[in-house]
Amino acid sequence: MPKVVDREKRRAEVAEAAWRVVERVGIRAATLRDIAEEMGITKGSLAHYFQSKQQLVAFAFEYGVTRVFERMEAMTRVASPGVDRLRIALELMTPAHFDLDAASAAALTFWAYATDDKLLADVHLRNYATWRTRVSGFLEEAKARGQLRAATDVALETTALMALVDGTLVGSVLEPDQFTKARILEILDHALSRL
Amino acid sequence: MPKVVDREKRRAEVAEAAWRVVERVGIRAATLRDIAEEMGITKGSLAHYFQSKQQLVAFAFEYGVTRVFERMEAMTRVASPGVDRLRIALELMTPAHFDLDAASAAALTFWAYATDDKLLADVHLRNYATWRTRVSGFLEEAKARGQLRAATDVALETTALMALVDGTLVGSVLEPDQFTKARILEILDHALSRL
Repeated sequence: MPKVVDREKRRAEVAEAAWRVVERVGIRAATLRDIAEEMGITKGSLAHYFQSKQQLVAFAFEYGVTRVFERMEAMTRVASPGVDRLRIALELMTPAHFDLDAASAAALTFWAYATDDKLLADVHLRNYATWRTRVSGFLEEAKARGQLRAATDVALETTALMALVDGTLVGSVLEPDQFTKARILEILDHALSRL
Repeated sequence: MPKVVDREKRRAEVAEAAWRVVERVGIRAATLRDIAEEMGITKGSLAHYFQSKQQLVAFAFEYGVTRVFERMEAMTRVASPGVDRLRIALELMTPAHFDLDAASAAALTFWAYATDDKLLADVHLRNYATWRTRVSGFLEEAKARGQLRAATDVALETTALMALVDGTLVGSVLEPDQFTKARILEILDHALSRL
């Protein structure tokens, strides 16, 4: 048991180091050697945990999104049911709430890698299935409490809101003057006010 | 004059060939050599027009988006003013209307390249400034005709609608089961019905 725990702990440390390197040089330029150096270990030791950059990128993203989901869980637990929880589940996935400046550009690059890499595509699908469950769950909750129109199509609304959030991520990187943090939160408020 | 025309015509042929290669092998794998071969010319002849893959990708995207804008112009000219034109200006930029299957994945990869490449970032900014002018223009037109609430914030609505369209592109590549062409058009209809 302790060995498994240590291994998971070590992999988490690698993911943290990977994100620090990405913050400094970007996801495309980051190498396994950079990440090993960041941790003060050899590339050979790092290979004990990750054999390729692709594997490490997959893990670092899953690790990062899992942290966001944990925060989402903690925040929604103490928020009012329905729309307030829905807002949290969407806001935390927008660049307005990312810890690292490099996270949005890294996410765009991760998406591009995922277009022709099954491992990364599967990580994305798994993360988004989890996110989708939360978003649609809070929409159902809001509907049951009469916070939405009775005719609300939860599946359609879920997909539309997730697309909107992803679009703010694209905009924050490629049209930063249009997609300030304040603007992104306004866009989300506006969408929620129309439910 | 004829020489300039020939050169532009030739560059357009290169862009068309580049898109055919991207459709076959993807944007990441496509090489200048593949594109030269597709045209039946040498890589040296191709270098007369484009010195790097980055330059060619920038041109091929600008070329592709310009074709979409031309179709948008032709379709909106004969459509009813206001919301009907707005719908066209948004729909043509969704994957539901792309000519090539590979275009969505190529666009995601182009965005990723643009995160750390100024030439591509500038092409994107220029294209999106043009698109933004159309979207906001048709929103103003709709507002002036009483098709929208009087209080509509056109700048906010423009940015939100563009983000939504970009999000459907991400979804169509990475969650294709959720973002079918029919679903994307439904999402857009839904957004327009709420204006």
